[in-house]
Amino acid sequence: MEWFARASKVIPAGIYGHAAPAAMVPLEFPYYAARAEGCRYWDVDGREYLDFLCGYGPMILGHHHPEVEEAAERQRRLGDCFNHPTPVMVELAERLVALVDFADWAVLGKNGSDMTTWAVQVAREFTRRKKVLRARQSYHGSHSWCTPGHGGLIDEDRMHVHEFVWNDLDGVEDLAKKYRGQIAALIITPFLHPPFMDSELAAPGFLAGLEGFCRREGIVFILDDVRAGFRLDLGGSHRYFGFEPDLICFSKALGNGHPISATLGRRELRVAASKVFLTGSFWYSAVPMAAALACLRVLERDGAVAHILKMGKLLTEGLQAGAARQGLQVRISGPPSLPFMKFSNETNLLRQQRFCAEAVRRGVFFHPHHNWFISAALKEADVQLALKIADEAFGVVKAEFGN
Amino acid sequence: MEWFARASKVIPAGIYGHAAPAAMVPLEFPYYAARAEGCRYWDVDGREYLDFLCGYGPMILGHHHPEVEEAAERQRRLGDCFNHPTPVMVELAERLVALVDFADWAVLGKNGSDMTTWAVQVAREFTRRKKVLRARQSYHGSHSWCTPGHGGLIDEDRMHVHEFVWNDLDGVEDLAKKYRGQIAALIITPFLHPPFMDSELAAPGFLAGLEGFCRREGIVFILDDVRAGFRLDLGGSHRYFGFEPDLICFSKALGNGHPISATLGRRELRVAASKVFLTGSFWYSAVPMAAALACLRVLERDGAVAHILKMGKLLTEGLQAGAARQGLQVRISGPPSLPFMKFSNETNLLRQQRFCAEAVRRGVFFHPHHNWFISAALKEADVQLALKIADEAFGVVKAEFGN
Repeated sequence: MEWFARASKVIPAGIYGHAAPAAMVPLEFPYYAARAEGCRYWDVDGREYLDFLCGYGPMILGHHHPEVEEAAERQRRLGDCFNHPTPVMVELAERLVALVDFADWAVLGKNGSDMTTWAVQVAREFTRRKKVLRARQSYHGSHSWCTPGHGGLIDEDRMHVHEFVWNDLDGVEDLAKKYRGQIAALIITPFLHPPFMDSELAAPGFLAGLEGFCRREGIVFILDDVRAGFRLDLGGSHRYFGFEPDLICFSKALGNGHPISATLGRRELRVAASKVFLTGSFWYSAVPMAAALACLRVLERDGAVAHILKMGKLLTEGLQAGAARQGLQVRISGPPSLPFMKFSNETNLLRQQRFCAEAVRRGVFFHPHHNWFISAALKEADVQLALKIADEAFGVVKAEFGN
Repeated sequence: MEWFARASKVIPAGIYGHAAPAAMVPLEFPYYAARAEGCRYWDVDGREYLDFLCGYGPMILGHHHPEVEEAAERQRRLGDCFNHPTPVMVELAERLVALVDFADWAVLGKNGSDMTTWAVQVAREFTRRKKVLRARQSYHGSHSWCTPGHGGLIDEDRMHVHEFVWNDLDGVEDLAKKYRGQIAALIITPFLHPPFMDSELAAPGFLAGLEGFCRREGIVFILDDVRAGFRLDLGGSHRYFGFEPDLICFSKALGNGHPISATLGRRELRVAASKVFLTGSFWYSAVPMAAALACLRVLERDGAVAHILKMGKLLTEGLQAGAARQGLQVRISGPPSLPFMKFSNETNLLRQQRFCAEAVRRGVFFHPHHNWFISAALKEADVQLALKIADEAFGVVKAEFGN
């Protein structure tokens, strides 16, 4: 709280953005991190947490992964930020293109938003159309066409952005009829993960339906895999769910915490891609690219995705069983590697916040309002410890709220 | 060229963005960097260059500055990308606010564009107006409202962005009359640095005139100091030129190559700032913040800005004299720490490109089309070496083109 008091003097709201205290449980949750190792971190008061958020996704192999950090350090000794790209940029683009089945080319950026916004522009360049379809409550970044915020926006930011309801293919068709020949892009995340709410997987046929719809209407189909990327299938989350987009955007877990993002696309989009100016001061920086290459190598060699899915399954099944034992009603949603748990019999978030606060108090970081992220650094014993602590937290919820 | 051939298979245009070969001198200039040290770097063919571009600005203290890298490494051992901010974020915000005279608060991002775009949104939130004034040929980043590119744009991206001519205060007043009560922001760089052309400093009274105009009309005055920041005055380039904005954006040199950007603002804008959602996956990352703190400390302690200005003056005066000795007509423009040199008697860029290619061939990297950046790692002997090589390059230009 001392750091927060200092921060509040020089930073609007003290902590802004996704780690704002109001987004978690104010006063109950840690505000400032001090250090981390593997799947654990410590706050500035020295309290230890088993981490089920992974820095909101990036730390897929855990903090200080030796091979990633060694690759980063090797590149750092050569240099990072040059007047030109470096060979590692070529190697990373080659690796990514080899990894993603439909991809013919790759570009790199820093933020997820850099890539989702650029992908929309490439679609507009390719189709010479203006409109973009996205799912209501989807998250595609913090740029004006898609931010969940309300401040600073003008009507023109979203004049050509139209929302459909997730899993409502008829609604998408209705938009197609209304805007026939005007739709440049349809962008989705591989599943819907609205804050404060259950995640929602695609209903059978929905993703294939979107794909068919885009093909038929000449719409560029963009998969925003910034959040889920590398936690469902190393070659892109479309493979896990069985569909195929035209463009795919990655970031978060790509560099195991090093700042990097990427977009890959089909051959047909290459010329359009080369026409949309894409740059940033640090976008040729080599260290995050070296880290990403190492991260991908380790993820593949260790079968990390399967391990992450397994740990996620162990956690979510254990939570479901633990809640049931105490007669509590919880719903686990989303895929096992990016799960979310909610008390299904409350309309406010009081049980939810109490449960997470009690878990945090006992050293397990579960986010009350945002999907969780499983890391490859978690071992079975870590998950068992988390389940034991979850049982205690369930007990507190039961004592306080009843079933 | 082997790397470029490989890149061209998996990356649109092979090298895109500001380091695209077409932006320099194709075939004559290096394409890929291999390693760097201080104010020198080596390309993949082992050729050495004395660097007057600094990675397009960031490397203000030179590559591998020991104190910056030590601070980064110390933070790296603790951790980088957490679920929360770290104390170093508070310390950096405090340091920046103390450094910039009019500032009451600071926020941090990754790219310069993250900050210029957000600053415009804050101005819109504060004023509840839509329109933005910017100078023709100014550069404020790669987002759709300001990118110099043409691909992927739609009319709505710039429906409320209006351009004035640099140094034409009457033109600005005309816009004010036309759009009275609708203008949220006026954004400038501290001097105009259009590519391929002479840089242009503000004429006497122009910047004060803009400031007065903004105060009178209730317009938020934004200084985009991403490019020039920390090379004119440590407290912001407005101090060097004698005016005062409401918001200032930094990036590039702030972290000596580590990816970070910042916006600082007046107290009156704090509430509006807290209302414009601002976030990115790596925006709490602590290592670039630790690097930025160290970079600012070294810049201040070593009087680096004065040294950079002095080295720039030595270089530009030497170039002017060297050209004069051979009867060549060159014009040096921009401030000494971010200078640009152009042959003033040509309408094409042939002398320009020949001069830079000859310098590059002899181991001095001068950019033919983009303003240069002076680093604090340059010593007088380095500049003297550059001038000696420039003399040879001038000689080739003279032999090939005459005066």
